[in-house]
Amino acid sequence: MASETSPGFIDAARIEIDHALEQWLPQPPACPPLLAEAMRYSVMAGGKRLRPVLALAAAETISPTRIARQAALPVACALEFIHTYSLIHDDLPAMDDDSLRRGRPTLHVLYGDGLAILAGDALQAEAFALIAREPNSNTHELAERKLRVSGIVAQAAGAIGMVGGQAIDLQAAGQIRNRQAQLDGEALRAMHLKKTGALIRAAAVSGAVMAGADDRAIDAIEQWGTEIGLAFQIVDDILDVEGSSTEMGKTVGKDAAHDKPTYPSLFGLDRAREMADRCAHHAQQMLTDAGLAHGRLTEIADWVLRRRN
Amino acid sequence: MASETSPGFIDAARIEIDHALEQWLPQPPACPPLLAEAMRYSVMAGGKRLRPVLALAAAETISPTRIARQAALPVACALEFIHTYSLIHDDLPAMDDDSLRRGRPTLHVLYGDGLAILAGDALQAEAFALIAREPNSNTHELAERKLRVSGIVAQAAGAIGMVGGQAIDLQAAGQIRNRQAQLDGEALRAMHLKKTGALIRAAAVSGAVMAGADDRAIDAIEQWGTEIGLAFQIVDDILDVEGSSTEMGKTVGKDAAHDKPTYPSLFGLDRAREMADRCAHHAQQMLTDAGLAHGRLTEIADWVLRRRN
Repeated sequence: MASETSPGFIDAARIEIDHALEQWLPQPPACPPLLAEAMRYSVMAGGKRLRPVLALAAAETISPTRIARQAALPVACALEFIHTYSLIHDDLPAMDDDSLRRGRPTLHVLYGDGLAILAGDALQAEAFALIAREPNSNTHELAERKLRVSGIVAQAAGAIGMVGGQAIDLQAAGQIRNRQAQLDGEALRAMHLKKTGALIRAAAVSGAVMAGADDRAIDAIEQWGTEIGLAFQIVDDILDVEGSSTEMGKTVGKDAAHDKPTYPSLFGLDRAREMADRCAHHAQQMLTDAGLAHGRLTEIADWVLRRRN
Repeated sequence: MASETSPGFIDAARIEIDHALEQWLPQPPACPPLLAEAMRYSVMAGGKRLRPVLALAAAETISPTRIARQAALPVACALEFIHTYSLIHDDLPAMDDDSLRRGRPTLHVLYGDGLAILAGDALQAEAFALIAREPNSNTHELAERKLRVSGIVAQAAGAIGMVGGQAIDLQAAGQIRNRQAQLDGEALRAMHLKKTGALIRAAAVSGAVMAGADDRAIDAIEQWGTEIGLAFQIVDDILDVEGSSTEMGKTVGKDAAHDKPTYPSLFGLDRAREMADRCAHHAQQMLTDAGLAHGRLTEIADWVLRRRN
């Protein structure tokens, strides 16, 4: 598929996002020092910044202006706060019990489960505080966009979205007594559409809304986000089989060790790769049909597909 | 202090709130059934509904109209979702390790720690989804009020508010290795201003904002909420010493057993009771000065002070 690759966009966006995240993390003395330290440890651990980059790319696709980018940046960072909180809670002994994340000890290993739960809880709240910040400087239009995005992000993060997907995953892993549920290919897709897909889709849609997209563009970007979210997850499953802990910065081979159903385990590696490619192809088609294929989203799709970690 | 007691208001508000909470809880099939069941178990377990009642009382104090009440109801329920999530996470073995809440087993006892963490996480997200719901039916004014309230609630729930207070509490209880901190009377007050005070204050302010309060009224109600939040906590500490498990529906005497500093342990029971009365007196003075003493908030203050559970 055609793409105007500009290798600078993603790297520049990440630098801008890292700077903004650091600036918008709660600081002492208003925030208790130990909690601030724990939140910072997890948020500033690096990572791909896929969701915030995606929000900025969607905003730029709709309107390549400084105003659109400035409107999208707090929302982009809010999405990363939510993603980070979900990793902190996911890594807990009561969930996936992971001791390594992005090449470093997970938060609960350093601070204990209690503070890790609280750091995650606080990051979720701060995400919504960030979306709603500076209400007095809003025009009517900006206030309406922010409120809409707050609802989109909340739904994507909540019971019918990310957390719902986690609950299905937990149940499928047999971690709730007497309530195990087996996942087939269709159920696996449904689980991932919630667990990772919802927030990735919300990132794309939120960026577009903040930049003033009309309903037709929002629809196309929402469908694009659904396909790209699935492609991301399939590639994640493949990397868990193929990658090394060094490249991934987290424990690999855990899906197989936990006997978790994955795309490679259900369909084989070759078929899984084909499925990821097909999702990306569908995604690109949505953009082309909506006249949005010129934008940064095409570049993001390539990145999602070709990443090594 | 004078109060037009209308014993019906609080009971009627609770019935309306219970009905709305039930209606607004995420439902299957969009929400995975097990997660929906867990969220419902905790939200519909009863409880005083102090925060949502307070939001409705503040709204009625500003504008005793049906429109104001309808605008405040989703916000009131959002506050109860957040309060419920904080109780679920607080009861976890990694935090207070409580097995009894409102006379029934705590959520993690029934479903395991993993699902309890997720049910709490989902309730926080749903709170913000509820505040932002039906964006298309908003006037400009309503959208701006909702966005402002979303930010107020997020700050009150997050790192500089409720979760920040929990983190101080956890640290004071010696649950973070090598990082224990002793609390004196002043630090105890600061901790409670965050841990329980922030959300109680936010409830009052949010109800007032949704009903269209001006800045002077919001200031007065914010200060009233601060005093009432402290009074609530002091009474809670007193009831933990004096109450029975049957009346309280939770394990009592836990503060002493955990060697936690409380108002009675630091100042004695008589002095603690005086302090609660003084807070309520200050609170009433704020309302009188702002010309708001005629409203429902006076009634709520009496309730907070005289409650037996």
